[in-house]
Amino acid sequence: MRFISEQRFDDGVLEREFTLGEIPGILWTPGSAPVPLILLGHPGGLHKMYPRLVARARHCAAEGYAAATIELPGSGGRPRSAAAEEARADLRRALAAGEPVDDEIVDRLVLPLVERAVPEWRSALDALLSLPEIGGPVGYAGGVIAIGVRLAVVEPRISAALLFAGSFVPRTMFEEARQVTIPLQVLLQWDDEGNDRRLALDLFDAFGSREKTLHANLGGHTGVPQFEGDGGNRFFARHLK
Amino acid sequence: MRFISEQRFDDGVLEREFTLGEIPGILWTPGSAPVPLILLGHPGGLHKMYPRLVARARHCAAEGYAAATIELPGSGGRPRSAAAEEARADLRRALAAGEPVDDEIVDRLVLPLVERAVPEWRSALDALLSLPEIGGPVGYAGGVIAIGVRLAVVEPRISAALLFAGSFVPRTMFEEARQVTIPLQVLLQWDDEGNDRRLALDLFDAFGSREKTLHANLGGHTGVPQFEGDGGNRFFARHLK
Repeated sequence: MRFISEQRFDDGVLEREFTLGEIPGILWTPGSAPVPLILLGHPGGLHKMYPRLVARARHCAAEGYAAATIELPGSGGRPRSAAAEEARADLRRALAAGEPVDDEIVDRLVLPLVERAVPEWRSALDALLSLPEIGGPVGYAGGVIAIGVRLAVVEPRISAALLFAGSFVPRTMFEEARQVTIPLQVLLQWDDEGNDRRLALDLFDAFGSREKTLHANLGGHTGVPQFEGDGGNRFFARHLK
Repeated sequence: MRFISEQRFDDGVLEREFTLGEIPGILWTPGSAPVPLILLGHPGGLHKMYPRLVARARHCAAEGYAAATIELPGSGGRPRSAAAEEARADLRRALAAGEPVDDEIVDRLVLPLVERAVPEWRSALDALLSLPEIGGPVGYAGGVIAIGVRLAVVEPRISAALLFAGSFVPRTMFEEARQVTIPLQVLLQWDDEGNDRRLALDLFDAFGSREKTLHANLGGHTGVPQFEGDGGNRFFARHLK
């Protein structure tokens, strides 16, 4: 893990860009004392996502958490995969035509992404937990929900997850969802254009966790209300402190 | 409105039992300065419900709200209605037999209750708002959800409602739900034995409010997690302060 830039915000939060091999990432820390870590999931494209990510990170830091994120495979400046680009194009066509999205398209788009992204998140976690400013425990917050589900199943260092049900989920992930046992808070935008509400509710139903809470709010994909930021912090305060 | 007893708790909250004509009720106030009021809805039976009601009321008072509740028609010491008792018995039979509950039974049970209870809640509100310790605005919190829906439609002095989707809702109330425009937070127990989850989700979908949030938690009817008490206070803090 190599730090390549740093800046300190007026609230004292230190932002450092890093690379982990070919993977770019960003770490935000509230201070030098070891604190719990929240991994910020996102749909890919660190630069495009930066404004939302830094806002969430500083919100976390204000509550005494470090926050970190990495670029997804095939996003931002990272090498594209022809197959993924093709699947994405097929998805766009289906959505534009107002057609139902074939499971086969979702599988082609999401499953390879999960296969590649989850090991990268885990090696980022190895590197982050080796830093003196990061104490653990660790939470995962955000989309892509299929990545969050896989991480929750395979990564024992993740103690709680705040998942955004805002992206497509391969049917095969429902079996994995049943294996999730950590506390979950799931955000659902009730009128999310590109998201199947019924499927999201079925996924929530499938999770094996004994503590799981669904927060559904009126509005579209990007309309998550401000107050859910506090809701997320309170969820993590119950499980990471 | 006649106060018939009072006691002060060690946290300074004053509890006063009152009668409003033939209707018994309880008022909890945090102090003498005028504060917003939260009406505590419940399924009937003040004595049976008292432990849960007083806990919720003191939780409200700790956040600077007054709280009040009244006995429902046909509950506690109030005269029974033969028709309601018969409907209740039919409902119990259906549930015991694991049969689907006929809409007709729900209508016989809930509609007359709503018709009688809502005007009583409104006259209680008249009396409560005339007290110097009650300033308004006013929120409604709890079940019976059909009563909350009707109150939200007909009572302009109620600014926000926290509704517990834990009881049967006549189909005809869905049209009323579309007329609700105040901010709503709806609690749903995901595994509520006596409650139709799909119907509860359809009702949430039907509400006309521009701000509506669903909090669904794992567990049965009486398993609402402690932390939803704080969630409710934060909801009201956004809308009653």
